[in-house]
Amino acid sequence: MPSHLALLSCLLVLVLSFDKFLFHYLRRRWFSGGGSGATVPRAPAKSRRTMAAAKWSETAMLVIDMQKDFVDPAMRSPMLVAGGEAVVPAVAEAVAVARERGIFLVWVVREHDPSGRDVELFRRQHYSGGKGPTVKGLKGAELADGLVIKEGEYKLVKTRFSAFFATHLDSVLKTAGIKNLVIVGVQTPNCIRQTVFDAVALDYEKVTVLIDATAAARPEIHLYCHV
Amino acid sequence: MPSHLALLSCLLVLVLSFDKFLFHYLRRRWFSGGGSGATVPRAPAKSRRTMAAAKWSETAMLVIDMQKDFVDPAMRSPMLVAGGEAVVPAVAEAVAVARERGIFLVWVVREHDPSGRDVELFRRQHYSGGKGPTVKGLKGAELADGLVIKEGEYKLVKTRFSAFFATHLDSVLKTAGIKNLVIVGVQTPNCIRQTVFDAVALDYEKVTVLIDATAAARPEIHLYCHV
Amino acid sequence: MPSHLALLSCLLVLVLSFDKFLFHYLRRRWFSGGGSGATVPRAPAKSRRTMAAAKWSETAMLVIDMQKDFVDPAMRSPMLVAGGEAVVPAVAEAVAVARERGIFLVWVVREHDPSGRDVELFRRQHYSGGKGPTVKGLKGAELADGLVIKEGEYKLVKTRFSAFFATHLDSVLKTAGIKNLVIVGVQTPNCIRQTVFDAVALDYEKVTVLIDATAAARPEIHLYCHV
Amino acid sequence: MPSHLALLSCLLVLVLSFDKFLFHYLRRRWFSGGGSGATVPRAPAKSRRTMAAAKWSETAMLVIDMQKDFVDPAMRSPMLVAGGEAVVPAVAEAVAVARERGIFLVWVVREHDPSGRDVELFRRQHYSGGKGPTVKGLKGAELADGLVIKEGEYKLVKTRFSAFFATHLDSVLKTAGIKNLVIVGVQTPNCIRQTVFDAVALDYEKVTVLIDATAAARPEIHLYCHV
Repeated sequence: MPSHLALLSCLLVLVLSFDKFLFHYLRRRWFSGGGSGATVPRAPAKSRRTMAAAKWSETAMLVIDMQKDFVDPAMRSPMLVAGGEAVVPAVAEAVAVARERGIFLVWVVREHDPSGRDVELFRRQHYSGGKGPTVKGLKGAELADGLVIKEGEYKLVKTRFSAFFATHLDSVLKTAGIKNLVIVGVQTPNCIRQTVFDAVALDYEKVTVLIDATAAARPEIHLYCHV
Repeated sequence: MPSHLALLSCLLVLVLSFDKFLFHYLRRRWFSGGGSGATVPRAPAKSRRTMAAAKWSETAMLVIDMQKDFVDPAMRSPMLVAGGEAVVPAVAEAVAVARERGIFLVWVVREHDPSGRDVELFRRQHYSGGKGPTVKGLKGAELADGLVIKEGEYKLVKTRFSAFFATHLDSVLKTAGIKNLVIVGVQTPNCIRQTVFDAVALDYEKVTVLIDATAAARPEIHLYCHV
Repeated sequence: MPSHLALLSCLLVLVLSFDKFLFHYLRRRWFSGGGSGATVPRAPAKSRRTMAAAKWSETAMLVIDMQKDFVDPAMRSPMLVAGGEAVVPAVAEAVAVARERGIFLVWVVREHDPSGRDVELFRRQHYSGGKGPTVKGLKGAELADGLVIKEGEYKLVKTRFSAFFATHLDSVLKTAGIKNLVIVGVQTPNCIRQTVFDAVALDYEKVTVLIDATAAARPEIHLYCHV
Repeated sequence: MPSHLALLSCLLVLVLSFDKFLFHYLRRRWFSGGGSGATVPRAPAKSRRTMAAAKWSETAMLVIDMQKDFVDPAMRSPMLVAGGEAVVPAVAEAVAVARERGIFLVWVVREHDPSGRDVELFRRQHYSGGKGPTVKGLKGAELADGLVIKEGEYKLVKTRFSAFFATHLDSVLKTAGIKNLVIVGVQTPNCIRQTVFDAVALDYEKVTVLIDATAAARPEIHLYCHV
């Protein structure tokens, strides 16, 4: 079966399974208002912000694992996601639009103990001598160049694929009245997918993945195994 | 890309990602001892059982969602997994071997409130008038014909894809000293995959999926999106 | 220090700690409307129910562990709560008023495997020969005489003190829009208290304990260690 | 009832409830070996450490909330625990002995967002203008003077009373083979107690509270409501 057919069947299954609760959008389409069913009107900056805040107050954007060890080839990390560097501009653009809309931004990052004692078993061999992927305090755990956490935004540390696994993320979101999530970052078949499935299990009403602001080590996997 | 190449790349990525912690076995190979690196010797039934109990005391088998509404076409359930009925004999065989080996058997099932208030949002439209897929007490929630829970085995009720999501399964397994899991049932891209990923997140040492004792609504998805 | 002073200091500490988020009411006061800051007006039954449903749609009542092994001395269970039997009428009355108000009722019960493998370590010695406290299917796991789960009400099985520990209770409540909890049952220093603390941790807005519809094995503990 | 009798009844209930799984020790008794049933022999430092490491490899010490805002009156924090400062030396001594024994040390701390969006609802009024109790990065979130996290020890951030609530602590401990916990810090009726109950629910085999290395805002509560 040619790849575009496989992709098609993948999307069909998604539509069948998650109905209207899980969306896959291109940035362009989502930013033009596709994610909410209506466009954000162009208006003077200040009133635009006020309108946006009301409209988007129940939506949060999760930016996942956009750390140097995952997306910057210069780090020579074993955890490098091959397509990661290429999506940094798209993620930055998504973040900029989210800020303009007043969407609550959550920067989800991995930070691990130098010993690796809080990383998955299958990754522990990468930790020794106080070094390893995204060790807390080391350069590889920093956000990729061009991405910055601003005041009022939230940093959430996780130690597994899903941003919800053994963290207080659901607590922060639910108590803030968040019902819809928009997800960007790396990488699709692991952290993105697990976060999406947990979000669906946790009854978020709409879960949107911006598929051109996510990446996978192998693009064809990205297409076939999307969710 | 032809499908067999896509499958190949899928498995390669798996090998790279999960290393030796996640296995995909055919029943035949696993039952012959492939799962543990050694065959179970043929010996008189009683001593065989004793030996098995010692050898396999740290392994549990999770049988997932083998309920009529998922695998029996006669139920006409909207949740029917197309390939489900075909794997019932394979699951039954896997269970029989697990019993002989003294492996702790956990029957994971969905049981929902007639109102559907404990089902995922995207499935609630299937519940009305006290009926719906795998409603507790109705026929659709029963195990498929040919599958029976025996004394000493455990029934675990879940309400989401993953057998670990908001259940006490990890507690029961960890406290019993279980370190390795073998997984069979339906369906691969949802309940099987989410259970597998959570098991990896929860640091089970070996997680084995018997790929010919699992099923997916669309076989090609099963191949492409395996894990 | 005399006991009434100790009680006083206990309540003072509570007021200081939890402010207006945790209430301790006598049934009489709560039923008269104290729990919501206003009385439920007397009106024809039907319209009363409609009004109540609107008013109380964000409140759930948790009825905890009102099972024969905990409250019926005839069971001779090692888990018997000494003061439990005495509060059955008060619990029944609380349930009746909750029904009239249209409050969502959740019956939280323990049901354990005959082997005791899903009970706390410190209680396992009570399980043998397929028997033990609140074993699923045995008489001791049934609700106390006079208490019945009606259609539309929810049964939630737990295996630890807190009704929220390793269960999907929070999911059911949050998704149903529940923000406030009223708690009755046994017993105060264990299951009630742990459920209350978890409810506070989970950001329920008001958590009310009806102190004359709860019980403890030793009344003075009930007073001193209330929360 | 005089206070010493109330204390006595409290301990009796504990003994009845948790049997041998929950211990309350004075430092002196635990350090002399009471916690394990045998004394640590005096031997040359190096071999002593090796012996200790083997003996204590399944035990972790949780040091809870020993932060300036909780124990240092100079911070003028609304969260100050009245008896907190007085137990700093006892906690420091407990930590020193744990280090000598090779016990895994986990420093559990609260660190909150300046907005207070990740704190319990009933404490949010204490956060404004980027300030509030134990805000991440501010002085109040630092450990009390005299307490330092050394290499090889673990810092665990929590946002609720229990060290296990919505954190990966259980994962880190279980995967490291930890079966027994020793708990010190502040404060008894909240964070200590909730951590203890969750530890029991999570099937840790022995949970020991060093009662002279814990504190409560009101000593009589400490006695009456211990667990």
